[in-house]
Amino acid sequence: MKTAITPTRAENFSEWYQNLIVAADLAENAPVRGCMTIKPYGWAIWELMRDEMDRRIKAAGVLNANFPLLIPIDFFNKEAQHVAGFAKEAAVVTHYRLKMIDGTLQPDPDAALTEPYIIRPTSETIIGEAMSRWVQSYRDLPLKLNQWVNVMRWEMRPRMFLRTSEFNWQEGHNVFATHEQANADARQMHKMYGDYMRDVLAIESVRGEKTPEERFAGADHTYTLEHIMQDGKALQAGTAHDLGQHFAKSFGIQYLGADGKLQHAWTTSWGTSTRMMGSLFMSHSDDDGLVLPPAVAPYQVVIIPVSRDDDDAALNAAAEDIGTKLRGLGIRVMVDTSDMRGADKMWKWIKRGVPLRIEIGAREMADGTVTVTRRDLGKASKQTMAVDAFVTDAGDMLTQMQHDMYDASVRRNKEMIKDVADLDELSQKLATGEIGFFRIKYDQTTCPAFDALMDQYKISRRCLDDNDPTFVFVAKSY
Amino acid sequence: MKTAITPTRAENFSEWYQNLIVAADLAENAPVRGCMTIKPYGWAIWELMRDEMDRRIKAAGVLNANFPLLIPIDFFNKEAQHVAGFAKEAAVVTHYRLKMIDGTLQPDPDAALTEPYIIRPTSETIIGEAMSRWVQSYRDLPLKLNQWVNVMRWEMRPRMFLRTSEFNWQEGHNVFATHEQANADARQMHKMYGDYMRDVLAIESVRGEKTPEERFAGADHTYTLEHIMQDGKALQAGTAHDLGQHFAKSFGIQYLGADGKLQHAWTTSWGTSTRMMGSLFMSHSDDDGLVLPPAVAPYQVVIIPVSRDDDDAALNAAAEDIGTKLRGLGIRVMVDTSDMRGADKMWKWIKRGVPLRIEIGAREMADGTVTVTRRDLGKASKQTMAVDAFVTDAGDMLTQMQHDMYDASVRRNKEMIKDVADLDELSQKLATGEIGFFRIKYDQTTCPAFDALMDQYKISRRCLDDNDPTFVFVAKSY
Repeated sequence: MKTAITPTRAENFSEWYQNLIVAADLAENAPVRGCMTIKPYGWAIWELMRDEMDRRIKAAGVLNANFPLLIPIDFFNKEAQHVAGFAKEAAVVTHYRLKMIDGTLQPDPDAALTEPYIIRPTSETIIGEAMSRWVQSYRDLPLKLNQWVNVMRWEMRPRMFLRTSEFNWQEGHNVFATHEQANADARQMHKMYGDYMRDVLAIESVRGEKTPEERFAGADHTYTLEHIMQDGKALQAGTAHDLGQHFAKSFGIQYLGADGKLQHAWTTSWGTSTRMMGSLFMSHSDDDGLVLPPAVAPYQVVIIPVSRDDDDAALNAAAEDIGTKLRGLGIRVMVDTSDMRGADKMWKWIKRGVPLRIEIGAREMADGTVTVTRRDLGKASKQTMAVDAFVTDAGDMLTQMQHDMYDASVRRNKEMIKDVADLDELSQKLATGEIGFFRIKYDQTTCPAFDALMDQYKISRRCLDDNDPTFVFVAKSY
Repeated sequence: MKTAITPTRAENFSEWYQNLIVAADLAENAPVRGCMTIKPYGWAIWELMRDEMDRRIKAAGVLNANFPLLIPIDFFNKEAQHVAGFAKEAAVVTHYRLKMIDGTLQPDPDAALTEPYIIRPTSETIIGEAMSRWVQSYRDLPLKLNQWVNVMRWEMRPRMFLRTSEFNWQEGHNVFATHEQANADARQMHKMYGDYMRDVLAIESVRGEKTPEERFAGADHTYTLEHIMQDGKALQAGTAHDLGQHFAKSFGIQYLGADGKLQHAWTTSWGTSTRMMGSLFMSHSDDDGLVLPPAVAPYQVVIIPVSRDDDDAALNAAAEDIGTKLRGLGIRVMVDTSDMRGADKMWKWIKRGVPLRIEIGAREMADGTVTVTRRDLGKASKQTMAVDAFVTDAGDMLTQMQHDMYDASVRRNKEMIKDVADLDELSQKLATGEIGFFRIKYDQTTCPAFDALMDQYKISRRCLDDNDPTFVFVAKSY
């Protein structure tokens, strides 16, 4: 059977993913090393994802602010683990002017910075410095801040949405009076992220704590959301960090307690990024292109007038009329009256993953019906409905699709998570090419034999099992 | 009379502005040369401004996208006027890794970029390159794109919101088949900006075209929105550029016409930034602090329970109840039940410019009344109203305040714009310290005598008079 995307997922998952992004017109590689351009259709998806995440962040009592893009190297250097984690991928600004020298535009040697800046890879340091001034007394706590910004981590093996040198994200940074409160915040936001991924992205996360080996550079605890892709690989889709007093001590974030004593505060940070889009695309899509959960679909319904006549005014008007009714119900609709051929239009919107596709031709118009197809179920779901019945049911059909997509994600996770008794069994499964998350006793993974398997099969510890933290999930990953 | 901000506007406008920003908790200078941190209250204002601008941009049929932060120097170099305009303030990225050398973290000499990048000062070049690939035929036109991003122009004399090295903005970039369409787009968006500033920011713009001397680097026509501050100085709050074929030719943006001929397209760009916030703050505020138009006030109403008892549960409940009723009407409300003294709370919210201030004490609660004060009118507007009447009227009171603030802006512009017959009269007025916009024949300003006045008094041509483009407005500026 011919598919809209070649190769198929089964033939070459990695190439399928690259071609999916082109076919759905989501993004392209930019002429800047490791960076991407997010095209309008991709960005419209991100805006829906971002706006809903922002609502949930604000509902948690967090205030948005905006901190500088550039960070003095000296700041960055204050927390040892942090600098070790990020120095090797930092973009460095060394000059503040260009000059034409021998006919070539170059950094002006007379405009070299005494102290260079790095482009933020994350903002714990510069926000920590501000917090050390903003927090004075227990009355200033908790201080809960977030920003939506671009960050940069120089990437040698870039991959669109999954690993790009520049990416867009939200980063929450928070200060508390006690470790208990800070830890509760990291756990609460970890839960918020998981619930968001479930409700909005229709993705079931493996939720758990990172092992000490895999923690964020400068954290006491890192809580992660791991998604299982269709090829069994893991994608880390969000993290929340209990930073203990590392940054409070490095930046002098202290407060005068109700008891009159000056003490160091406790901080957290948590973030999700455009990387979630990579997970969204790889989790749900099929060999015909993107499949979008209705909650983040720029168009939830596409209406395609199908006629031999290029410009059938009556048919177009009937299509627009249905569109207007649906919009009145708060549904996002595209009525495609462009002059492409009907089949080309149909495939265009299949590849872009619009949840419900409506076709209307002369016969349907005469009968007062439409043909409706659900993107995730394809031809099997094709049905003819009276226009009024469809308008009435469309909202419920979208809700049902959102639920069904989440259920499919839950089912895949169940199939993909496999218990292994010991390293021998793990090694056997990896040798035979078995895919998925392997659940194994954590203490089995703290020995040289496991390190050797990690190197050989490019697996890593994803997170501890929340139900029994003596177990860890290991998998290949993006 | 004691004022909340010292010095007053009359005493020292520039220092008043700096202190206003501190008093209203809007922003602070960052520990990064020329950069600022926008604090939560300031950012909440920006989010309201941004969201409404975004709605109007989308209503004009423009799609949002996201292009890279970094621009290859080579791209930047392709349009001669453009590079001349921006090279002298470009932040340059030269390395992609840090290394500990002799105990100091430094750019790693082994990670020097063969071709350095600059941080975008504006994105005509990198978007032009993408457009040269995205535009092939007349069917691809018009192509109308926008992005909300941070940009950087190294600033030697920074001033919060007005001139900062990094700032946030939206930049629209568009391609058309004909010069007529491109010019119409620049004019349409220029009008949209002016209407937005009128309706949302309650600011009357002087709308007109820049003289050839003051055009954007690489534009055929630049249309500008000039705001007149309370000290008579100009603030450029937004611009729209008809770029002719400069960038289309530099980047090879060509399309195959319906006539089968390959031809260069015509482009525009237009932008507004966080600089508009500087205008908003300087236009409306007074010696007691910020005055915000209701459309962009994070809280449109603040309700302050006033009691000698720190924690008067019944009074707080009555205040919360009014808040709930107002929120139900779509009004943004702060109920301040914090344990600050009543007078301190009152001054906090006066300084932050909340449009309507409600005080409720034991007597008001018993009577079922509240005391209402409008921020822009102050004590003179103080009145006691029945709670129900206030809840019913609050929306209209906010609308009235928005209109009154705009009317005040119109009045100030009328007072501040002064006709001068010739350079002698202009010179006399400047010598006596007269403030404002001076309207003079444009041809009077194209001679060495005018250049000398520009240097002496730091004035500049702001724009041609739309009603008679043989006249130009000259003024000092931010």
